[in-house]
Amino acid sequence: MDSPQRKPIPFTQIQIRDAFWAPRQAANREQGLDAVYQQLESTGRLKAYDLDWTPGSDQPEPHVFWDSDVAKWLEGACASLITHPDDALRARVDQVVSRILSAQGKDGYLNPHFTVVEPKALWTNLRDKHELYCAGHLIEAAIAHHRATDEPHFLNGIRRYADLIDHTFGPGEGQRHGYPGHQELELALIKLYRHTGENRYLDLARYFIDERGQPPHFFDIEARQRGENPADYWAKTHAYTQSHLPVREQQEIVGHAVRGMYLYSAMADLAAELNDPTLVKSLQTLWKDLTNHKLYLTGGIGPSQANEGFTTRYDLPNREAYAETCAAIGLIFWASRMLHLDLDSRYADVMEHALYNGMLSGVSLSGDRFFYENPLASDGCHHRQPFYACSCCPPNLNRLLPVIGEFIYSINKDEIATHLYIQSEAKVEIKEQEITLTQETDYPWDGLVCLTVNSPSPLTFTLLLHHPGWCGEARVYLNGSQIDFQKHLRHGYVALTQEWQPGDEVRIQWAMPVSQVYAHPDVRANTGRVALMRGPLVYCLEAADQTVPVRDIRLPRRATFETRYEPDLLQGVVSIRCQAKTLNRKQWGGMLYRDTPPDLLDIPLKAIPYYAWDNRQPGEMRVWIPEAIF
Amino acid sequence: MDSPQRKPIPFTQIQIRDAFWAPRQAANREQGLDAVYQQLESTGRLKAYDLDWTPGSDQPEPHVFWDSDVAKWLEGACASLITHPDDALRARVDQVVSRILSAQGKDGYLNPHFTVVEPKALWTNLRDKHELYCAGHLIEAAIAHHRATDEPHFLNGIRRYADLIDHTFGPGEGQRHGYPGHQELELALIKLYRHTGENRYLDLARYFIDERGQPPHFFDIEARQRGENPADYWAKTHAYTQSHLPVREQQEIVGHAVRGMYLYSAMADLAAELNDPTLVKSLQTLWKDLTNHKLYLTGGIGPSQANEGFTTRYDLPNREAYAETCAAIGLIFWASRMLHLDLDSRYADVMEHALYNGMLSGVSLSGDRFFYENPLASDGCHHRQPFYACSCCPPNLNRLLPVIGEFIYSINKDEIATHLYIQSEAKVEIKEQEITLTQETDYPWDGLVCLTVNSPSPLTFTLLLHHPGWCGEARVYLNGSQIDFQKHLRHGYVALTQEWQPGDEVRIQWAMPVSQVYAHPDVRANTGRVALMRGPLVYCLEAADQTVPVRDIRLPRRATFETRYEPDLLQGVVSIRCQAKTLNRKQWGGMLYRDTPPDLLDIPLKAIPYYAWDNRQPGEMRVWIPEAIF
Repeated sequence: MDSPQRKPIPFTQIQIRDAFWAPRQAANREQGLDAVYQQLESTGRLKAYDLDWTPGSDQPEPHVFWDSDVAKWLEGACASLITHPDDALRARVDQVVSRILSAQGKDGYLNPHFTVVEPKALWTNLRDKHELYCAGHLIEAAIAHHRATDEPHFLNGIRRYADLIDHTFGPGEGQRHGYPGHQELELALIKLYRHTGENRYLDLARYFIDERGQPPHFFDIEARQRGENPADYWAKTHAYTQSHLPVREQQEIVGHAVRGMYLYSAMADLAAELNDPTLVKSLQTLWKDLTNHKLYLTGGIGPSQANEGFTTRYDLPNREAYAETCAAIGLIFWASRMLHLDLDSRYADVMEHALYNGMLSGVSLSGDRFFYENPLASDGCHHRQPFYACSCCPPNLNRLLPVIGEFIYSINKDEIATHLYIQSEAKVEIKEQEITLTQETDYPWDGLVCLTVNSPSPLTFTLLLHHPGWCGEARVYLNGSQIDFQKHLRHGYVALTQEWQPGDEVRIQWAMPVSQVYAHPDVRANTGRVALMRGPLVYCLEAADQTVPVRDIRLPRRATFETRYEPDLLQGVVSIRCQAKTLNRKQWGGMLYRDTPPDLLDIPLKAIPYYAWDNRQPGEMRVWIPEAIF
Repeated sequence: MDSPQRKPIPFTQIQIRDAFWAPRQAANREQGLDAVYQQLESTGRLKAYDLDWTPGSDQPEPHVFWDSDVAKWLEGACASLITHPDDALRARVDQVVSRILSAQGKDGYLNPHFTVVEPKALWTNLRDKHELYCAGHLIEAAIAHHRATDEPHFLNGIRRYADLIDHTFGPGEGQRHGYPGHQELELALIKLYRHTGENRYLDLARYFIDERGQPPHFFDIEARQRGENPADYWAKTHAYTQSHLPVREQQEIVGHAVRGMYLYSAMADLAAELNDPTLVKSLQTLWKDLTNHKLYLTGGIGPSQANEGFTTRYDLPNREAYAETCAAIGLIFWASRMLHLDLDSRYADVMEHALYNGMLSGVSLSGDRFFYENPLASDGCHHRQPFYACSCCPPNLNRLLPVIGEFIYSINKDEIATHLYIQSEAKVEIKEQEITLTQETDYPWDGLVCLTVNSPSPLTFTLLLHHPGWCGEARVYLNGSQIDFQKHLRHGYVALTQEWQPGDEVRIQWAMPVSQVYAHPDVRANTGRVALMRGPLVYCLEAADQTVPVRDIRLPRRATFETRYEPDLLQGVVSIRCQAKTLNRKQWGGMLYRDTPPDLLDIPLKAIPYYAWDNRQPGEMRVWIPEAIF
């Protein structure tokens, strides 16, 4: 572990002004939030708060995780209001908040599913029923609402629910010794503690995390109390909820991917609050397992549909990849927290990958259609949808996109670390001075970044610059003079300590050639295949750009690549072109087996960024391209 | 369709004397039959005929398909007795026959499961319960028993059962208008018709085949009669039993593979008996779909475990291949029947492939351990077992191996076609003369075949010789003089018409180089991969022969192969060796992704015939080898 803990510079202090993220944020603000709201309304998710569902009624039965969809939307809407005030959206937020609060019980309890569908079953199935998970999202929404509006009523209402949970769960006699089956509340409670200063929320988060997986297993006890045999658990293993072992004993990434990411994020927050090296050690071990064995090139995670999660080492199928959008979002949360605990570029590399690829593929360029699963190959039948029956991903994107700024920097008393390069202006207080950090860049299309430090007066601090893992060659200039940045490298960051003068400029040229990427030999799915990357972006072949079927394309190992910014393609992207090969199908005929391979014919190849696929006519897509064999 | 229908030369008239099949037959005779018998006894399959099982008893409940296991063993034992009399085996056969007959009802009914477990449910679930399937196997066993012993009592007993079925099923009022859910009885009835001359068995087979898939669907009617909703059918589609359409309308290979093969075999038999071109046309269409889209290189079929059968075109995964041994056996049955209907080398090619690879891999060299599934790649955890809970494959091998001879030739009034090259002596009557056909060859290890025709006096007929599809170059000599065999080719057979003199010799040299085989570009599993074949044998890499992990081996496209007969290896095989490449793992390190591929290092490679894998220490195996990329 390196130097003292860091905190993010809040997104509220950062103005993103770039040509890449700003349009994504605008699409979310102008299309995405409204599209998801309409779905919340039309599917009955908002109506559920009227508590007028009865068995046999025409209304759909309020589902056990519906609150979380509403809460994530609300969090996203409030985040958007902070940077982009909007009266209509504010009115909608007010109305949703009123509707939610109207469904709260006198004791603070708030979950329409249990209130109207299973009123006698409160807190009886934490393992499967998402009750505490929903509470967590309500808390996050309430904090965002308080920040956006400065009005306390929603936060106060949700705190009454948090307090009820705090009374209900804990080590005391008469308390339930349980913890969430779908983690999320833990990190929400720590956020609530940070927002309110109330220690009891931190203590409860700590209790949930410490208690998790302790024998005798709570979910078994709870199952028996329901009259069930714990052996009949549908998921078959408590690894599904990462409760197979106490958290400090966990060394392997297992189970449901989103659950895992939210747990590890909460563990990182708790480690920061408690300064607990045992938690950090466990997180570092888990991180290593993930990134060495179980991570898609896109930053997607969790290959299997069966458990929406992890399987065995190197099991990374492309077409069948589950790689849920929420899991990539969860990985961004975890990675950003690791950067605050343990500044090291390997966390920033993964965070950047997940942001630009596995998360961003989850939303259409129009902002209103969403992937749940993010495969790395498709026959052309996988498309973004307006919503899903289990629709966690769309509102998760709604709440992530407005706060992208929060992942750019972290700061402690005398250091500012830059993790992401996004054209923006940030205002931050360090050493009791408010300074402005300005980034000018065309990133991710170009590797040139100009970072200007403006302080009212000269100020000594350390500016750290993430040296991206994908970058082999770089040049760094300080006020126009090249410096030997290799001498300043610290855990993958260029660390510049000096007395900064107002207007000092750091200019960095991250060389951004096309790179051919290979997977570990044990990743069976990628034997004989190569992927193309440029900067943080993973590229793919999509049928719309090719002259032959994508599955027939073979990439010569010694291809020469050209890149070109195409302003009219997919809202502006850099495409990659080269001469490639295709199979001569005509020559093959109809036979199933032959003793001569098909000839290879020359064709042009064009690759586009993976995040932007499936925004045109449907067709085949592949990230991993077979190499040409001669 | 070519010339008049053919019949096999029965295995009873052929002595196999080669170094390849004779040891396999001996292992079956000396180990396999006893091993399976012991399992029939110890698992309760024989005890079931005592009809003393009661609900709650310690005995295992007689299973719905147990009779078929016993019957297939019995058929194999009887076939073996014909060519290799054996008093001990004969005594065992007598005892099993008595035991079976003791369980027969007064009306002829014979199925211990229904008699003791579901006595009220006779004929109520043809779709799922294997009742008619078991009857078919009993019929085949009874015919073999009659041939082996000349004693009529077992055949007579089973004919009483066949007659009961004939009374029960048919188009008449008061008859059930059904057909087998697991096909097999159809072909058994035609065999019984041929053996006894009784037309009613042929008529019943015809009824079952013609009725199959006619609307309204019998399995739906039957389900409703059981009080079930047909829509709740577990297999979801009648394609599972190839009853989704009337058989003459079926154009795609679908459903459960063994069911399909037995149906198509019966359709071919019926087409031959009725001279029905509509059936032949349907079979030719189905054959084309199978061999162009759904056939493993090994002759294995049915890639999916879920339905034990077929999926979509080109879906031929290697590691996950189901490729049930029984399905390869069924394919041999079907292919041999197509040769009798429509002499064409494409049927003989597939039959040979399935015999030497996908079927033969099903049994250990020791003869007493069996594969149910025959994958084309393994991590080293897939091994032959003595038996299975669902153990159709071991006794199916028991009954196939003794009758291999029957697949060598077929004959009609003036033509003898040779499909397989196996050192052997066959006696056959043609044009009212008994002639002897002698093959001398080391096939499949060497392509030289000497076929001698011995007739008492000169005799004019046509001798047809299968030109194997794998063979690019051949030389054919008639009594020492080379002939231009290309002029004599007819549907892939060398057709020699002449007045044969006693002792005339045809010598053929089928060139047998190692060939590199490629799969159709749409077989995703084999992108960038190559398989090695020599003659009819598919080869594989097994860990025991390699110096590096099998998964790391890469085959250069321009490899130079050496072959070597190794008498002490796997009971004597020709191995294939070449210089190949392996990944330099040391250089890779622990990273999941890198921008440079691993170096390739030289290593020796040694391949063995696929059928012989898993007869040594466990380890990785692969048929399809990634090609080296430079």
